Amino acid sequence: MTDEPLSPTERTRLGRLAEKGRTEREELHKLLDTALVAHVGLDAGGYPLVLPTAFAVDLDGPDRGGTLYFHGSTAARWINRSRGAMVCVTITEVDGLVAARSGFESSMNYRAAVILGEARVVEEAEERLHALDLMVDHMVPGRAATIRRPSRKEVAATQVLALPLWEASLKVRQGGPDDEDDDIADNPWGGHIPLYRVAGAPVGDEGSRGPVPDDVRRRAEQLGAR
Amino acid sequence: MTDEPLSPTERTRLGRLAEKGRTEREELHKLLDTALVAHVGLDAGGYPLVLPTAFAVDLDGPDRGGTLYFHGSTAARWINRSRGAMVCVTITEVDGLVAARSGFESSMNYRAAVILGEARVVEEAEERLHALDLMVDHMVPGRAATIRRPSRKEVAATQVLALPLWEASLKVRQGGPDDEDDDIADNPWGGHIPLYRVAGAPVGDEGSRGPVPDDVRRRAEQLGAR
Repeated sequence: MTDEPLSPTERTRLGRLAEKGRTEREELHKLLDTALVAHVGLDAGGYPLVLPTAFAVDLDGPDRGGTLYFHGSTAARWINRSRGAMVCVTITEVDGLVAARSGFESSMNYRAAVILGEARVVEEAEERLHALDLMVDHMVPGRAATIRRPSRKEVAATQVLALPLWEASLKVRQGGPDDEDDDIADNPWGGHIPLYRVAGAPVGDEGSRGPVPDDVRRRAEQLGAR
Repeated sequence: MTDEPLSPTERTRLGRLAEKGRTEREELHKLLDTALVAHVGLDAGGYPLVLPTAFAVDLDGPDRGGTLYFHGSTAARWINRSRGAMVCVTITEVDGLVAARSGFESSMNYRAAVILGEARVVEEAEERLHALDLMVDHMVPGRAATIRRPSRKEVAATQVLALPLWEASLKVRQGGPDDEDDDIADNPWGGHIPLYRVAGAPVGDEGSRGPVPDDVRRRAEQLGAR
């Protein structure tokens, strides 16, 4: 099922710049693996609200196409508004600045996924714990197994929502500018500045004693820390 | 006016974690200066839609608190939906991964601004050109003056929307985890991995001859390219 192409509905079909649209689910999954923050959009009661949140993906999750999980406090208004509601989760990675020879062609390189669906409340304790572990491991792979297990009180204070990875579009821009021939003739340089996210060395808090644990050290190294 | 504190209305007042809320407009302006992408949320007709977009800010713009500009093709459905509508523009920078001693305290360091308002269509040609220049300069400072001016056709094909920088909230998380004493006693290490955005060396396209221009070189250097 996850081999079916993306964008199965009219509302996620790309209108403009469809040449930048991608339909391979594998590319969507790669972006979701790399990105750290999702922007969740919802109807806050007559006006739209967009909030950044951590997330995690379970490609073998119970929802069609796999499951995207996000969470919030049971006391958070936005998460209560999202329960069972249509939400839009957008995940964007910026990959570069495109320095074109005209303002019209000036642009950015990016990968952006737009996922639409009904946010399902994760009621079952086992699935909720699994989702919380996935969110910890999404930030630092392997860490959920090395830290204290969530208490019953903590799990009760956390709402987890699930979104099917089904109705989605993916847009990718990469490389240099699409300048017109006249502009290239007139202006000797056009190109792009690649952008990356890199980590600094891990910083222990005041209560820390002893070396940086392996999971944290590996994650920092994977993100380019030296 | 821009010295007045942020969050003047109920709907942008922070509910949860208000200790992370900031009310200084200067901090909002700094974030908008650094960030490259805004996530625009709108009602797409019965469901929310969130799209990433370039943006620029004019603190002396005609709107209350200053003006945030974003743009899109006149043929883009989402930008036509935004004209005169209530939109939410959210701008987030991720600054680190917080490796706590429990899943509950696991978190990210970030700065996030949420701006609500009615998107004003920029009809006047002069303001539209000014906004387009600001968007080019936001990506590469000084570049609007070194490239071809927009043609009448290009300006006509571009819709520019303006949002007052007025009704807004700003949330900032920084530093290490907020672990409980028991967890600190049990687990010798908690801390965070700082994250940065850095540039690689500028890449000229196939039509380029000659050196990287000063504006592009300076921008790449400012973003850490060596």
